[in-house]
Amino acid sequence: MRILTAGESHGEYIISVLEGFPKGVKIEQKVINEELARRASGVGRGKRMSSIEKDKVVIISGLRNKVTLGSPIAMLVKNKDTKIFSQSQDELPVISVPRPAHADLAGLLKYHDTDIRNILERASARETVARVCAGSACKQFLHNFGMKIASFTVSVAAVASLKNPRNISEIIKRAKKSKLNCLDAAKEMVMIQEIRKAQKKGDSLGGIIEVWIDGAPPGLGSFMHFDRRLDAKFASYLMSIPAIKGVEVGLGFAYAKKRGSVSHDAIYCSTTHKANKAFIRKTNNSGGIEGGISTGETIVLRLAMKPIATLSKPLDSVNVTTKKKEKAPTVRSDTCAIVACGIIAESMSAIAITECFLDKFGCDTLDEIKLNYKNYFKLLEKKF
Amino acid sequence: MRILTAGESHGEYIISVLEGFPKGVKIEQKVINEELARRASGVGRGKRMSSIEKDKVVIISGLRNKVTLGSPIAMLVKNKDTKIFSQSQDELPVISVPRPAHADLAGLLKYHDTDIRNILERASARETVARVCAGSACKQFLHNFGMKIASFTVSVAAVASLKNPRNISEIIKRAKKSKLNCLDAAKEMVMIQEIRKAQKKGDSLGGIIEVWIDGAPPGLGSFMHFDRRLDAKFASYLMSIPAIKGVEVGLGFAYAKKRGSVSHDAIYCSTTHKANKAFIRKTNNSGGIEGGISTGETIVLRLAMKPIATLSKPLDSVNVTTKKKEKAPTVRSDTCAIVACGIIAESMSAIAITECFLDKFGCDTLDEIKLNYKNYFKLLEKKF
Amino acid sequence: MRILTAGESHGEYIISVLEGFPKGVKIEQKVINEELARRASGVGRGKRMSSIEKDKVVIISGLRNKVTLGSPIAMLVKNKDTKIFSQSQDELPVISVPRPAHADLAGLLKYHDTDIRNILERASARETVARVCAGSACKQFLHNFGMKIASFTVSVAAVASLKNPRNISEIIKRAKKSKLNCLDAAKEMVMIQEIRKAQKKGDSLGGIIEVWIDGAPPGLGSFMHFDRRLDAKFASYLMSIPAIKGVEVGLGFAYAKKRGSVSHDAIYCSTTHKANKAFIRKTNNSGGIEGGISTGETIVLRLAMKPIATLSKPLDSVNVTTKKKEKAPTVRSDTCAIVACGIIAESMSAIAITECFLDKFGCDTLDEIKLNYKNYFKLLEKKF
Amino acid sequence: MRILTAGESHGEYIISVLEGFPKGVKIEQKVINEELARRASGVGRGKRMSSIEKDKVVIISGLRNKVTLGSPIAMLVKNKDTKIFSQSQDELPVISVPRPAHADLAGLLKYHDTDIRNILERASARETVARVCAGSACKQFLHNFGMKIASFTVSVAAVASLKNPRNISEIIKRAKKSKLNCLDAAKEMVMIQEIRKAQKKGDSLGGIIEVWIDGAPPGLGSFMHFDRRLDAKFASYLMSIPAIKGVEVGLGFAYAKKRGSVSHDAIYCSTTHKANKAFIRKTNNSGGIEGGISTGETIVLRLAMKPIATLSKPLDSVNVTTKKKEKAPTVRSDTCAIVACGIIAESMSAIAITECFLDKFGCDTLDEIKLNYKNYFKLLEKKF
Repeated sequence: MRILTAGESHGEYIISVLEGFPKGVKIEQKVINEELARRASGVGRGKRMSSIEKDKVVIISGLRNKVTLGSPIAMLVKNKDTKIFSQSQDELPVISVPRPAHADLAGLLKYHDTDIRNILERASARETVARVCAGSACKQFLHNFGMKIASFTVSVAAVASLKNPRNISEIIKRAKKSKLNCLDAAKEMVMIQEIRKAQKKGDSLGGIIEVWIDGAPPGLGSFMHFDRRLDAKFASYLMSIPAIKGVEVGLGFAYAKKRGSVSHDAIYCSTTHKANKAFIRKTNNSGGIEGGISTGETIVLRLAMKPIATLSKPLDSVNVTTKKKEKAPTVRSDTCAIVACGIIAESMSAIAITECFLDKFGCDTLDEIKLNYKNYFKLLEKKF
Repeated sequence: MRILTAGESHGEYIISVLEGFPKGVKIEQKVINEELARRASGVGRGKRMSSIEKDKVVIISGLRNKVTLGSPIAMLVKNKDTKIFSQSQDELPVISVPRPAHADLAGLLKYHDTDIRNILERASARETVARVCAGSACKQFLHNFGMKIASFTVSVAAVASLKNPRNISEIIKRAKKSKLNCLDAAKEMVMIQEIRKAQKKGDSLGGIIEVWIDGAPPGLGSFMHFDRRLDAKFASYLMSIPAIKGVEVGLGFAYAKKRGSVSHDAIYCSTTHKANKAFIRKTNNSGGIEGGISTGETIVLRLAMKPIATLSKPLDSVNVTTKKKEKAPTVRSDTCAIVACGIIAESMSAIAITECFLDKFGCDTLDEIKLNYKNYFKLLEKKF
Repeated sequence: MRILTAGESHGEYIISVLEGFPKGVKIEQKVINEELARRASGVGRGKRMSSIEKDKVVIISGLRNKVTLGSPIAMLVKNKDTKIFSQSQDELPVISVPRPAHADLAGLLKYHDTDIRNILERASARETVARVCAGSACKQFLHNFGMKIASFTVSVAAVASLKNPRNISEIIKRAKKSKLNCLDAAKEMVMIQEIRKAQKKGDSLGGIIEVWIDGAPPGLGSFMHFDRRLDAKFASYLMSIPAIKGVEVGLGFAYAKKRGSVSHDAIYCSTTHKANKAFIRKTNNSGGIEGGISTGETIVLRLAMKPIATLSKPLDSVNVTTKKKEKAPTVRSDTCAIVACGIIAESMSAIAITECFLDKFGCDTLDEIKLNYKNYFKLLEKKF
Repeated sequence: MRILTAGESHGEYIISVLEGFPKGVKIEQKVINEELARRASGVGRGKRMSSIEKDKVVIISGLRNKVTLGSPIAMLVKNKDTKIFSQSQDELPVISVPRPAHADLAGLLKYHDTDIRNILERASARETVARVCAGSACKQFLHNFGMKIASFTVSVAAVASLKNPRNISEIIKRAKKSKLNCLDAAKEMVMIQEIRKAQKKGDSLGGIIEVWIDGAPPGLGSFMHFDRRLDAKFASYLMSIPAIKGVEVGLGFAYAKKRGSVSHDAIYCSTTHKANKAFIRKTNNSGGIEGGISTGETIVLRLAMKPIATLSKPLDSVNVTTKKKEKAPTVRSDTCAIVACGIIAESMSAIAITECFLDKFGCDTLDEIKLNYKNYFKLLEKKF
């Protein structure tokens, strides 16, 4: 499976093309739109978000009667902004002062350019709309195999949730009622206060997100070559989300602090189950991945989002043309986008695991993949 | 540039093939061997390491008079073990009890196999010998552009270094004298004690490593498509190292706890320099990467290594054939391989940044790349 | 550079996404539309072609003020058919009789499906619209380096042109006046008669096309690894065009019949020129590629197009559901699409050589690439 | 599946690494050696061939008890030449006169170098040894699914065989007795005379080869995206063989001369068979590929080999350093390598189709792939 995304922040459309997606998968536009709505939600979003980003996808290829044809799926989301970048570029003034923590300055240097407009149009979180579209299609594929993906907010700035989920249903249920996708209702209140405070001060906040993938079969990914490892793929796909500065699998950095004897997930035998369920873990410190392969346990990923680069009360910067000190501009005014980031992380995780799933089970049609999937479990049953 | 590695832990050779490496680069076999020696060093290594792993590389293609031809570079490292896997396989007994935290069980499930020997031969840290060979070749290439890569041990288990380096020379200098590649001599003593203690108890330890890349030009990587981001590539390449459970860029997870106003790297103007040096940062919380692109500051990466999976005093496990409870076997007896992991992390970082460097500056010959590199700075000078 | 295309024959749009295209390249929508018009032209086209396929591209991302940003370029072409596939699928009846020589039957088998509609929507020549869009963008890039690409019709069915072009200008000039893109006006008349005859009989015709690439520098492609050869890339990209059954470089199959002493392109010295022009060939039997690398001579490619699969007087076939003998259906009624095929071949050639060009000279900005290109010739001048 | 090859013509080894090859496949070193012997055989080979190239492969990774582990398979073939390139490079004199039709001049230009030795070491037919090793492993995999690959010589220079095989067994049987791998014993005599004559005159000859793949299931490759077409892959892999200037599928260029009504392979119904055998063709002008997908018929590929570039009675050339006219040097003295080329073409075809096979049926273990393969036919049986 291959994905290309396209589209500028103030262009007419954001585009996502998925090539190599199997035939015979039902894809609901409605479900993608719900994901897009989740992406635009959450406390801490600016006005552009709530008023403008009512994104609706139009699938312009790859489907017939809502079912995939096996051909590339192209999805368009119209940018609702009134000024259309590609048509009235002259109206858009030159931007000369880079925002610290944004791609602005590094982008100007890479392209030896002096108009930041040429950088920020693509180095924009709008681009993640395309990833959510692709991710939602992948999730709908994965549902056919009982796989679910959900995320929750672990912390906003210094405020950390004190509740861990027992299972993925708990995450999904809670997400619907929460304004910050946080399992700990009390701490969520503190988080919201923290965001309001930052909003008033013109500051921005980041946070930590956890993604769970439930129902993944064992055997996805491979240790046979370093670039086929499932954890390496997750790391790459999650780190590629704007503002992400850290990725963990399972215990992550905390694992490094423990002794092996008390942290590795001991293996036990099931008295009742066979095949992949013949072996039981009482802990899941590995986060469902050992040796670059899914173990069959829940996959647990964590990612750190830095505060948003654009501040209403902006940072010191420099006008790259005049070389004079200036304050960074305020292009956009989210204070905290932790909820959106969770949805995007789910999407990227869904894409990553779909790719590994198709590698193992073939990629032509859902019917074929389902049979191949069953085969694999039959083979496991013979052995264990 | 493409890399394939091959070779089993008890096979005759570990092999590394680098395709797309530029012509005209001097590669010293001696330098690769020094890196291999570093990989086998450090407190906490078992006997196999010190006695057997005196790895020497033989470059069997791609060089003439020590200079690259532009053709694929194949490097062989002979495994010094007396029993050669590929020749006397019958002597090697079936292994039926998987080690928790190792690829053993996940590997058996993936391949519906019952002999762990078929898994662990490739899912072995021996494979990283090939990465160090490739990484050392890349480092030698990068030296032509003033780029240096070094690593140091931030912590072993719960013992953390209290010293931060001021520059990369300090890291490189210290590394030569240290037994754990740690900048804090006092804490290193405690780390060593911790390792000795674990060794006696048959336990294993992990730790945290920091990698610095000095001298990278701005503009490597790209935000134009998510899979071209420099940080995503680093994340993937570092997470692909066995035992790694977390990767950070710059402040990493700590960044998520801060407010934007106090953590983003404000931009200032140099009064003396031009081109890419025209803009100054007083902090480097971004770790030298903004918007998926190198900023020109030092690139700072951090990775978390879990304790080694194989314990002398082993963990609970199960015989996958008899389905009876059994203790996991002890195949190998390192207690802590943090130093080796640092070298491997440097190697993977070198490979990652070389790939992005060749993308930007062309890949045919060193002479051509050097001119293209100069061009780029001339273009920058014109603008800034 | 990466390309994904999407879109069904009766879907709303055909889509082309170009990722990795350099920044700073002027792209004229008008020029793409002219190429699309050429694609729809030529004697032998059916009514759908002339009345419906007045394709106009809309570039929805990647440009600002007609100049590329370095971001993915997404191009949409609306299908003018009144019935829109994706919206009114129910109206489209099941198709059960495969056309020999079309993807119909092989597609049904691959996807174990019984409705050919699910196959032919993507296995349609409409898809090549996306390739022409991408190819035209590449051509516009290549013009910055004095490279031109043109094609002409060598034969239609058994009628062969007797004229060979002396240079590319001659091809380009002639193409504008010719109805079959043939250099031999007399033979073109016979070709047209042949097409009219076939049209009346409900038959279809193919032919042979030659593509010339003028101005390619030496050194594109590589023999260092088999999959980096320029000729291999051309072969793959040209053979991927629907209906193509053969590809030749230079003398092609005729080369196999000659002795080396009379066919290889002897090398001479220029008395007046330096650098890459220091060496002269009096013949170009190699077609501008030796050892998988461009020599600097005109690149000459030839491709064989089989007759169109859909015939008005159709062939024997089978109803795959009833398993009864039936005549193949007539979905579309071009008799000969040799002119379109030439444009598509030019487009695929443009894409192929652009990829190799960016590999050698870098890919970030046109300014940078231009300087790198000059560098290369300076290095050549020093040596030769 | 990925392949990298390495090794110079006068280096110590030729190396082939196959990554992504399934677990559980029996690979006989002996069988690979037989293929290597075939590669070195045939009338028209020089002395280096017969005396030196008694190539033997050593598989140094990826196997246990002759069965693949799923890990990368590394294969080494020692170059028997006494002078070892990598160790005694100083002894090898500078070469300054490029051979027309060889990579020599284009290589010098690409790398702005003046010593052809740096080019020809890799731009050498020795490199194809690595492809034969990889191809033979693929063939051994394909045998598990009843697939066979064979080739025969269609023509040498202007002498063409008059016999067409009825089935693949005939090709295989004949190949063993023939000195030129030609089905037409009478014409073979003429071909041999032609080669002897050329040999005496210091000339070189090429020819045409046909490759048959028998037993390929329908459904390999895809029309869903242009770069997934089976014919495009074959074209690329065959054109990548040194000296190849043309590739055809099925009727190839002859197809372009026919009318659709008399050339397309009409479809009939089997009265006795089901599934993929339910549909019958009486002709195979498509060469077993329609719409970029295998039809289930025999795959027929044809390739044109130009005469060898190195002539004993050499061509006009130029000393690139002195810029004086000189005769091209004689590095090697095969007169005609058509038999070797056939083996290499079989190998590349085997690699190509194995890749497409693994794409469709999964790639982890032979057992799993066999079940998935059966599944597919069951699905076909349900439908047809």
